[in-house]
Amino acid sequence: MTFVWLDGAVCAQDEARISPADRGFTLGDGLFETMRAVDGQIVNLPRHMARLEAGGKVLDLPLPTADTVRDAAQSLLTVCGLDDAVLRLSVARGQGPRGVLPPTHAHPTVLLTAVPGAFSVSHVKVVTSRLIRRDEQSPLSYIKSLNYLPGILARQEAQRAGAQDALLLNTQGRVAESTISNLLVATQNGVVTPPVADGALAGTARQILLERNLVREATLSPADLHEARGVWLVNSLSLRVVQMLDGHELPEDAPTTSLLERGLRQIE
Amino acid sequence: MTFVWLDGAVCAQDEARISPADRGFTLGDGLFETMRAVDGQIVNLPRHMARLEAGGKVLDLPLPTADTVRDAAQSLLTVCGLDDAVLRLSVARGQGPRGVLPPTHAHPTVLLTAVPGAFSVSHVKVVTSRLIRRDEQSPLSYIKSLNYLPGILARQEAQRAGAQDALLLNTQGRVAESTISNLLVATQNGVVTPPVADGALAGTARQILLERNLVREATLSPADLHEARGVWLVNSLSLRVVQMLDGHELPEDAPTTSLLERGLRQIE
Repeated sequence: MTFVWLDGAVCAQDEARISPADRGFTLGDGLFETMRAVDGQIVNLPRHMARLEAGGKVLDLPLPTADTVRDAAQSLLTVCGLDDAVLRLSVARGQGPRGVLPPTHAHPTVLLTAVPGAFSVSHVKVVTSRLIRRDEQSPLSYIKSLNYLPGILARQEAQRAGAQDALLLNTQGRVAESTISNLLVATQNGVVTPPVADGALAGTARQILLERNLVREATLSPADLHEARGVWLVNSLSLRVVQMLDGHELPEDAPTTSLLERGLRQIE
Repeated sequence: MTFVWLDGAVCAQDEARISPADRGFTLGDGLFETMRAVDGQIVNLPRHMARLEAGGKVLDLPLPTADTVRDAAQSLLTVCGLDDAVLRLSVARGQGPRGVLPPTHAHPTVLLTAVPGAFSVSHVKVVTSRLIRRDEQSPLSYIKSLNYLPGILARQEAQRAGAQDALLLNTQGRVAESTISNLLVATQNGVVTPPVADGALAGTARQILLERNLVREATLSPADLHEARGVWLVNSLSLRVVQMLDGHELPEDAPTTSLLERGLRQIE
């Protein structure tokens, strides 16, 4: 049986109930974080909470505390019998009447789910999305919200092209990220990642690599990727080596792959 | 007690259950339509179904038939004891495993809700959003999806400015629509509305006014609005006269208000 933690208690997923009036369902009005648990502990919880709180300010959405999230994860992982897992925390606005404006006193819905999983390294084919671009001027490009249709459409586009992910450019044609990962590119000047101002979500794995001086920020054009010594996709769950981009083979910089993997697996 | 129609049956809203694994909740993966019922019948159902089907093609999402929606509305309105009502039809992807890509065989969640309501005419203050713009190049700007955060953020921005709605420009600075309505503007050359290619949703009320030759399409700049003889917001539920835009009073063209109201209230 699958269990979830919903609004304060662990229950069977088949019995957990989201209201049809929840604005998370009707309007995508909420935020989420995908986190990794190792040995029953959430990895990088403060970084995830900081990003969630930045999103909460944009949406004016009350959030659970880090203690609540930590306790919820421990309860859920114990009941599920999981040590290493992928956790997803969703915070939706909760029930509201018809209309776009949120209720003044919202009672958010807080959901934590867990599936078995661990950090992985793999090789992928990627295509540049022609359908979706990141609007680097939208505040929604900087928060991890329940509005995930741009990513879904680009991912469907990638699937039709036989690829595992899509590269997203911004409205100025600069490289931003992929549908679920930040992008790293080995250039003549070291390994770089697009700045947040170019429409890249401030990913937690990206942040760790920046803090450890393994990566620095630089604006990238699509041409830069074709000249790269290596291209990777990173998020809190995985490091993916881009083997092929838009049908062109890319070289792999294996020593850098190892370096990045060590940096990402290392838990503070 | 409030009732809803969910996946084939009417039930109490408090007992209706959306799964926490429904992609409508976790990713906003779905579509909706807001419709009006008069004397127990859905107004303009074929136009709503046509737009829903266009959205279904973009998302590759299976949809209920018009007959299913009509029968659902009749059952729900009867149980609720409503003749004139505002209906909302939501079609979400249904349950899926973790990940962005939809399952190959989705079982969509179909929800219909009803609240008392009838077509209304009112006067509003509007501000131009500085936060949100319509990306006229995104396929998501042309479908009515469960990803409504852009509208929510702009509506919150309007509330902070003491206004009832926000005007949205596109990425080129042209006028597109408001958060929940299409825009009509009385110019020297008659009443015009921004073309869909400028980032306007193809609203059903807008469509009716175009078909009845009460309105025609024309690209508009923000300056055109300040020189207008009248500005209105229209959707399937309301005609709103814009009295004030960004703190500047706008004239009201009362004869055109009456003409538009008659055109919108008239049911074929």
